Amino acid sequence: MIDFPSRIASVRSEMERRGISVLFLPDSSSREYVTGLRRDVGDPTETNRPGDWVSGVYIGLTAGPIVVEPRMGSDRMERQLEHLPWITDLRVLGEPDDYSGVLHGIVRELRNGSGAIAVGDRTWAKTVIDLMAAAPDAQIVNAHEFLSPMRMIKDEAEREIMRANARLTDDIYEAVLPQLTLGMSEQEIAWVVEREIHRHGGEFVSFHTGIRIGGGSASRGGSIHDSITDQRLENGTVLAFDFGLIKDGYCSDFGRTVFVGDPGEEHRAVYDLVMRAQAEAIAAMRDGHITAAGLDRVARGVIADAGYGPQFIHRLGHSIGKDVHEPPFLLEGDDTVLRTGMCFTIEPSVFMTDGAFIRVEDVVMVTPDGGENFNATGHELRVLEF
Amino acid sequence: MIDFPSRIASVRSEMERRGISVLFLPDSSSREYVTGLRRDVGDPTETNRPGDWVSGVYIGLTAGPIVVEPRMGSDRMERQLEHLPWITDLRVLGEPDDYSGVLHGIVRELRNGSGAIAVGDRTWAKTVIDLMAAAPDAQIVNAHEFLSPMRMIKDEAEREIMRANARLTDDIYEAVLPQLTLGMSEQEIAWVVEREIHRHGGEFVSFHTGIRIGGGSASRGGSIHDSITDQRLENGTVLAFDFGLIKDGYCSDFGRTVFVGDPGEEHRAVYDLVMRAQAEAIAAMRDGHITAAGLDRVARGVIADAGYGPQFIHRLGHSIGKDVHEPPFLLEGDDTVLRTGMCFTIEPSVFMTDGAFIRVEDVVMVTPDGGENFNATGHELRVLEF
Repeated sequence: MIDFPSRIASVRSEMERRGISVLFLPDSSSREYVTGLRRDVGDPTETNRPGDWVSGVYIGLTAGPIVVEPRMGSDRMERQLEHLPWITDLRVLGEPDDYSGVLHGIVRELRNGSGAIAVGDRTWAKTVIDLMAAAPDAQIVNAHEFLSPMRMIKDEAEREIMRANARLTDDIYEAVLPQLTLGMSEQEIAWVVEREIHRHGGEFVSFHTGIRIGGGSASRGGSIHDSITDQRLENGTVLAFDFGLIKDGYCSDFGRTVFVGDPGEEHRAVYDLVMRAQAEAIAAMRDGHITAAGLDRVARGVIADAGYGPQFIHRLGHSIGKDVHEPPFLLEGDDTVLRTGMCFTIEPSVFMTDGAFIRVEDVVMVTPDGGENFNATGHELRVLEF
Repeated sequence: MIDFPSRIASVRSEMERRGISVLFLPDSSSREYVTGLRRDVGDPTETNRPGDWVSGVYIGLTAGPIVVEPRMGSDRMERQLEHLPWITDLRVLGEPDDYSGVLHGIVRELRNGSGAIAVGDRTWAKTVIDLMAAAPDAQIVNAHEFLSPMRMIKDEAEREIMRANARLTDDIYEAVLPQLTLGMSEQEIAWVVEREIHRHGGEFVSFHTGIRIGGGSASRGGSIHDSITDQRLENGTVLAFDFGLIKDGYCSDFGRTVFVGDPGEEHRAVYDLVMRAQAEAIAAMRDGHITAAGLDRVARGVIADAGYGPQFIHRLGHSIGKDVHEPPFLLEGDDTVLRTGMCFTIEPSVFMTDGAFIRVEDVVMVTPDGGENFNATGHELRVLEF
């Protein structure tokens, strides 16, 4: 069980140390992290509810947390709060209501005339502007200056959820492979993945499912960043999976590449190279012994030594937890020292000139003795025969 | 064709009038509205790219638009810009790079020492804090104070896209109904809807597809705001659809309720009532003759007079365009006068005590003579017989 009252206490210590008297967190992963209030998965286009920009959680040094919620949806909020006894104050917005007045009143109440206001880093500008109007003398600071370091190190309860989610993702992958048939499109394969995520109890995808068919006669143009297409599985093509789920508030992120028919010599050699780059990086994930940028260099060195350096076109990986991409990032310029309990995707790749994308991706935790791989799916080369 | 250079000119007039020297718009519907740069559909959990918080479009009174984009994804951006000749300045962020330095440099360059900075209303707090650091004397203002009124009135090119999207949504609905079978769950029906959206060329759903099975022996608990469940279609149940798509930068949003087997007397009467409430509201959508709140009162009055007032639990509708919910909103407290070219969902409902949700929803434009319904699907009561 995650101990939210102690998280809130840690947050308040940080606030005190930094001269912050009010913390505002909108519906977000950070609000979920601090309070246990489950976030909503946003719609693909913007929606608006009356007073949405003043909705969220307000935490003072001693008062609160105060939850402000629009009327539409407040019944769901009430049901949630029954299980979160550390939140005792719910204020439901009317239609219409003096929304800014509600925000100004709470800021006045919690701030008591002094101190900075900290906000979640993706708080809307509209809210920030209203907070500045409520307390013109208050400095506005980014709460992630102290929330990010807290979120980086996963505690034992979080590790258990992330291990379980990684194993679930392995199971989903094994359930998907037998359903593939020649002629299936990237889009159709993505639907199979997403149905299996649902069937296995995943609550949602953690990011848009990535399916890429390249190589062989697949003439898929464009870049590695394009969305999935109607490109189809044929003999000689190379199929790269990249998918993940969210469950119990934590994400998975997983990648494998499989070959349709015999891959040929260069694909085989590059496949082995990518696995070796990942293995060397995982071995180097020892508490206190390496930085985020240094770990990127380990894997990049293996691939560069074999002559494929320019074809490893993205960072080695990213931290993962409540969000699919969290700091720190495994790339040049991030000098965070790796510590036990930090969880990263380790995902080296080579983007071949024939459009084949050869990659592996697992979620791996830093320990005193090297990385603990949360995924159990093997790294052997797999050929689909139809 | 939408005339982006003239939109940018209108934005600059508003900036000048309001003493704004810099406009910042992150990847969003408003950036798309002003520049033509297509927005990305965000992932369900937060992702991060190096320098993402300084990415976006910066527009000065005479200089720019300047596009700032992270390296990963910049190839796609370059391909887009080939078709948007009014944007000549692309700055690609390195890995690593002095991200704040890039933002500060552009603000200095465009602002020239004076003027307010306007930002899109959902610009991240992290960005706003950095903008304030770049120009400590500048007032930060919400760009939607002038962008929202511009976006409310759809021009002829926008109306054409929205009409086409509404008709496409009608076609999708007709393609979905014959695929329904007894025993299907809400989740399975949602998948059918989303596959048909894809097959018909929709780019994405505009919001999470809503499917609700109530009435009969369906014991679905919870509130109207809950997500779709595994509740199944049975004889005597009532099936409510609520779905929409995004295509060519504009949204649709559509709702119908159908009955599995004979609906019985009260359901029939309420169905007719809801259709009448919608028809009276549509007739009242005359340019300059009514406010947003007044229109809500028209439909609510019809339903209240029949004794179902407390069961019409949400606003009559919302404006729709690039986003699925845009201001103005059809509810008490919104006194915007309706004008030709404003497009709204008109979606009265009655939430029955047996869990049946009886609703209709179309996209309708204000004209001098009353509403023009963009949807063509009929309003007759439909019974599914299996």
